[in-house]
Amino acid sequence: MRDTSTHDTSTHDRPLRFTSEQRHDDGVLEREFTLGEIPGTLWTPGSAAPAPLILMAHNNGLPQREPRLVARARYSAARGYAVASVDAAGCGDRPRSAADEEARAELRRTLRAGEPADEIFESLVGPMVEKAAPDWRTTLNALLALPGIDGPVGYSGWTALGIRLAVTEPRITAAGFFAGGYVPRAQRAEARQVTVPLLLLLQWDDEGNPRQRALDLFDAFGGKEKTLHANMGGHTGTPWFETDDGVRFFDRHLK
Amino acid sequence: MRDTSTHDTSTHDRPLRFTSEQRHDDGVLEREFTLGEIPGTLWTPGSAAPAPLILMAHNNGLPQREPRLVARARYSAARGYAVASVDAAGCGDRPRSAADEEARAELRRTLRAGEPADEIFESLVGPMVEKAAPDWRTTLNALLALPGIDGPVGYSGWTALGIRLAVTEPRITAAGFFAGGYVPRAQRAEARQVTVPLLLLLQWDDEGNPRQRALDLFDAFGGKEKTLHANMGGHTGTPWFETDDGVRFFDRHLK
Repeated sequence: MRDTSTHDTSTHDRPLRFTSEQRHDDGVLEREFTLGEIPGTLWTPGSAAPAPLILMAHNNGLPQREPRLVARARYSAARGYAVASVDAAGCGDRPRSAADEEARAELRRTLRAGEPADEIFESLVGPMVEKAAPDWRTTLNALLALPGIDGPVGYSGWTALGIRLAVTEPRITAAGFFAGGYVPRAQRAEARQVTVPLLLLLQWDDEGNPRQRALDLFDAFGGKEKTLHANMGGHTGTPWFETDDGVRFFDRHLK
Repeated sequence: MRDTSTHDTSTHDRPLRFTSEQRHDDGVLEREFTLGEIPGTLWTPGSAAPAPLILMAHNNGLPQREPRLVARARYSAARGYAVASVDAAGCGDRPRSAADEEARAELRRTLRAGEPADEIFESLVGPMVEKAAPDWRTTLNALLALPGIDGPVGYSGWTALGIRLAVTEPRITAAGFFAGGYVPRAQRAEARQVTVPLLLLLQWDDEGNPRQRALDLFDAFGGKEKTLHANMGGHTGTPWFETDDGVRFFDRHLK
């Protein structure tokens, strides 16, 4: 990836600065950016036509540069979408408090041991969603001000953050969620208010996500148009064809 | 639909006779046939290349001429498949005993009243699957002997019959099942032996199919590659995009 001259788009008082760009063989342009303290990546299709935007967030604040997320983002961009991911406050490579680091280590230990993880999950991820959502809205504002990026907006990935954004951000018109076994109480309570068309994708034998809770969450969503997909293969074993199904879901609602 | 000269293909001692044919605008050729006492319909793509075969059966012996089944069959044929449906023994327009007629009326009454329907369902549909499966195998033999129809073979529709065929017929290499809330005991027991890739499609709010049983059935299937799709809209409200998803499932396994 090579550095390029920066391109600024002011949003409130924070400029969006592109810090690098890479053109892939399939025409997709991948650009890293910063928006104040928020680091992000924007993938756009090769064509010049305005593209609908998909915000793509990894579950529980995992880094935006995680390879599976990057692969999904590039695939979606090649199919005609502008796709953006950021490390919101407390997520990815952003600074974490010592307490957060400790809670993360404890959560991993608890899940590995197969012990009840609800309370530690709640104490870690509940505040993480609260802190991350404003950064995603700031990002959304800045991206929609760029040339070549158009509404309507889709959301893909982290269930809890997506619930919060879908409830608070009317520009989001379709949402694809992953897993949903562990979702903080506040977002479980908000699920009935999510009325946009949605696709919930879960792994039937996901060792880290209680199946019944994901099914209960799907049941709770308030929209008339909701679809559940489940597959085998464990937490990280989602078959690749679901990436294509996700794009086709957005094709129905964003194009 | 106009009558055409018959085309015979002998299978054992029963000839397959085409009794009518119709060419649709999309190139699909729709031909009614009889195979001994079995009436059926075969849809084939416009192209001359050999097409994989999909056996398409309506739930619980409903007629092969039911409009939703016909629409799915034509759509699949337009996408490159030979699709066949028959009224097997005891199904569709085939003669029924007075006892069968009475049991059907009683089942409808029971389901409408929301009363437990297990026993009457078992007594009606259990024997129906037993009687229907041999006719479908006879049909499969006859169809694979026709020019332009090729293996591998997919199955789509009625869950209970599909389980029986998938377990007893090694030429079936992928199966799409619908609903699955009521499945006779024998087929529930056989589900673990179904190891071909499968797609179970259910309606989340299906008034006539207990959801938990469908989920338990999905859990029971023995294969490593199984996918669940669920949507809203009641028993007959399956969204049309699932027809496309079904074809894409077969594209992954039959082409």
